[in-house]
Amino acid sequence: MRYRNATKVHKIPSSGRADEILGDIDVREAPIMNELGSALSNGGLNLPSVKRKLVGENGYVFDKRLRYNVRQNESNCRYRDIVVRKEDGFTHILLSSQTSANNALTPEIMKEVCRALGNAAVDSSKLLLLSAVGGVFCSGLDRTYLIGRLSKDRRKESCRITETIRDFVKAFIQFKKPIVVAINGPALGLGASILPLCDVVWASEKAWFQTPCATVRLTPVGCASYTFPQILGVALANEMLFCGRKLTAQEACGRGLVSQVFWPSTFSQEVMLRVKEMATCSAVVLEESKGLVRSFLKSLLEEVNERECQMLRQLWSSTKGLDSLFSCLQDKIHEG
Amino acid sequence: MRYRNATKVHKIPSSGRADEILGDIDVREAPIMNELGSALSNGGLNLPSVKRKLVGENGYVFDKRLRYNVRQNESNCRYRDIVVRKEDGFTHILLSSQTSANNALTPEIMKEVCRALGNAAVDSSKLLLLSAVGGVFCSGLDRTYLIGRLSKDRRKESCRITETIRDFVKAFIQFKKPIVVAINGPALGLGASILPLCDVVWASEKAWFQTPCATVRLTPVGCASYTFPQILGVALANEMLFCGRKLTAQEACGRGLVSQVFWPSTFSQEVMLRVKEMATCSAVVLEESKGLVRSFLKSLLEEVNERECQMLRQLWSSTKGLDSLFSCLQDKIHEG
Amino acid sequence: MRYRNATKVHKIPSSGRADEILGDIDVREAPIMNELGSALSNGGLNLPSVKRKLVGENGYVFDKRLRYNVRQNESNCRYRDIVVRKEDGFTHILLSSQTSANNALTPEIMKEVCRALGNAAVDSSKLLLLSAVGGVFCSGLDRTYLIGRLSKDRRKESCRITETIRDFVKAFIQFKKPIVVAINGPALGLGASILPLCDVVWASEKAWFQTPCATVRLTPVGCASYTFPQILGVALANEMLFCGRKLTAQEACGRGLVSQVFWPSTFSQEVMLRVKEMATCSAVVLEESKGLVRSFLKSLLEEVNERECQMLRQLWSSTKGLDSLFSCLQDKIHEG
Repeated sequence: MRYRNATKVHKIPSSGRADEILGDIDVREAPIMNELGSALSNGGLNLPSVKRKLVGENGYVFDKRLRYNVRQNESNCRYRDIVVRKEDGFTHILLSSQTSANNALTPEIMKEVCRALGNAAVDSSKLLLLSAVGGVFCSGLDRTYLIGRLSKDRRKESCRITETIRDFVKAFIQFKKPIVVAINGPALGLGASILPLCDVVWASEKAWFQTPCATVRLTPVGCASYTFPQILGVALANEMLFCGRKLTAQEACGRGLVSQVFWPSTFSQEVMLRVKEMATCSAVVLEESKGLVRSFLKSLLEEVNERECQMLRQLWSSTKGLDSLFSCLQDKIHEG
Repeated sequence: MRYRNATKVHKIPSSGRADEILGDIDVREAPIMNELGSALSNGGLNLPSVKRKLVGENGYVFDKRLRYNVRQNESNCRYRDIVVRKEDGFTHILLSSQTSANNALTPEIMKEVCRALGNAAVDSSKLLLLSAVGGVFCSGLDRTYLIGRLSKDRRKESCRITETIRDFVKAFIQFKKPIVVAINGPALGLGASILPLCDVVWASEKAWFQTPCATVRLTPVGCASYTFPQILGVALANEMLFCGRKLTAQEACGRGLVSQVFWPSTFSQEVMLRVKEMATCSAVVLEESKGLVRSFLKSLLEEVNERECQMLRQLWSSTKGLDSLFSCLQDKIHEG
Repeated sequence: MRYRNATKVHKIPSSGRADEILGDIDVREAPIMNELGSALSNGGLNLPSVKRKLVGENGYVFDKRLRYNVRQNESNCRYRDIVVRKEDGFTHILLSSQTSANNALTPEIMKEVCRALGNAAVDSSKLLLLSAVGGVFCSGLDRTYLIGRLSKDRRKESCRITETIRDFVKAFIQFKKPIVVAINGPALGLGASILPLCDVVWASEKAWFQTPCATVRLTPVGCASYTFPQILGVALANEMLFCGRKLTAQEACGRGLVSQVFWPSTFSQEVMLRVKEMATCSAVVLEESKGLVRSFLKSLLEEVNERECQMLRQLWSSTKGLDSLFSCLQDKIHEG
């Protein structure tokens, strides 16, 4: 609550590359492509696609530099691992973790997102845009952090961490304004699970999705045990949860997890164009429409969230569950 | 109730083009194509497709003429904006609005459909076929009508219109025999929302689907706030409701809104062939099977319908909601 | 219960072709293909695909021979129409009916499956693999059996048969360990309906799916009246139930009934590779994850199952329903 007035972050002076983090550019001047689908179905695209690739690569370089630009230009930044920008009609939250690799989620980062969501809920914005800085959207729970903490004090830490996960997921379930999420790259574990709790999901062709819960000795979180079977069908959801099946952006779109896929090079522009268009709608209509769509799900999702977190806590509290997790995580770390 | 005996409309004498409004032709004599999918995947289709196009164009011309033929041949027509035909084993309702453009829905037209559904519920037919005359299936609520009425008497008219919408949607929810719907062209707003309340949805390649609720300052109706996320996934459903995303027939089929897509030129024949086949099934098995499929949804859908209509009434009762609607609708009218 | 100790069937001595019934082969030595999807999208596959076809044909020949090998090598076989093999970490149930054609289900076969499921529930396995010997996965309820029994004693037999169906379906609903099902060929009627009650569904390119309930004068069973609309959307589910629409493996995968499709020639290897990988996961995590995914569905599915079987019994108890069934089944038998 006391952060309520701290969220208004000044816009970045237009650097000409701000589009790479889904920033505020004048999309009307940029050449806008049609949806990816139609562009891909077109035949002779060799030349443009080469050009696009170069732009993309350059973009990525600038992207890294931009991360610091964003921070340098924020006068009253109260966040460490996310960036919050107030745009015209919407709030933009960017995952940009300084304290974990690949935008992995620690309890501290999850708390920052909760705070930002709490602020966006009461500010004048009509909707929320969630995206990420860098090549990865979110790599899920931070394994190194989990091993470090759970090995110190199993009982206390398993409670603390699962409570934070619960509150983080709850914040998404309860958010009343539409949430648009723009997936620039891989979304793993909890980073993928939260997508069905958002309202519109756009992905870059580079994005992919994986929730290898059983493989890494975790039970599902983020309501994936309910939302994934609902959206993907029981068979594919279970293949993701049990076998770690990886979905490409196109597969995720074909099966309903993602609503549309865009070229990486124009992804930011396409998203901003559409978000700005959405932000011209009536705030009441947007919020009431979301309310209608979510009304029957809200209490169910909250119950699922409670159960999932309780299950994870039990797993981490048991010696067997934790040993299994540790040996698995350490294998992964040695592999990687 | 008093119209119960009025529904038996005589068949049109076979004019050789009746197939264009999904009429009663001997499909066994016509060359029937396989499903669109397999036909499209086949390679060397240049010549047939040209031929098909011509047939389609001719068909469209005859189609317009036919609209009047249909009416001229009905001796005891009690409907103005729809045509009701009793076929062998099924009842055929065709939207064919004389009082609105593009089969747009006014309260009067919705009431006619309700009456026809009420009659079909108790006649000897085993199932219902719903289709439309002309190039558009249904363009949703009639905007010109809405502006005209709501600007006269906001409170009274918002009640009256939303009550009619509620009863119209309820008539679909409660209809016990299977409803097959054949979408010949664009289906917009409420015209698209009712599709998941029908049982089998076949579309012509020319059809497309759009429910731009938020864009035109309306909240969802026709239970779309519940059925669209269920069928299309939350992400795509919201993109349709919030951003006015347009789905092609093939996209709608890939995502589950439509069960099969057919070539425009043979669409009517394909539909009639299948509906007649369905009508050979046992009436009890059809009705009981639908009962099983719908049993868990019926009361939920009725609740959704109530909520949606209540929300729309509130929106129209508020000065702000109405002003927003008016400015938006007038923009659209000036654009178009 | 008394069969609990009878399930440990010795492994077949590796015959070099055991892979054709999803047996225990060293998949690391075999050349493993990528998922079908990516393989198909690749261009120049002419030579490999020819080779693959030959392997597939040979495989089929060996397959037939193998059916007898499997039986000869089982010392303490307690099952007649199924084969149960205990593998490392999982139990493998194969439909291999001696008393019906095309793995059609009779009450006796359903009871054998229930017994095998009951045993697998309490043995040391972490998961269950369900597949079939021969070219057909399961052709649904045995029509010849139905006609024979129901014509003898309508009331008694309709009760007995529907009770067996109910218990068979209930056994799937209540099974707590993950069930992987591998569909080698056609899955019809009840053989297709049970798929959404399993957890991961893999299919060979040769598989196809059909539930022509209304066409053969039956109401849906196996919870298809609930699970099919949930997974496929109301429109396609009803087209399957009412019109007997046939889904190819690829269509079933695109619409969520199947999670992945593999080449017929390497299907067994792909499945075994993945099942063995799954069986390395923690048993607790697997069972708890399935518990989370299914928790909200279990009681609903049990209710659906009760209703469906009650409906079928009523249908078979009525003279009209039975006459309709008989004339339809006899037509089919004459046709075939």
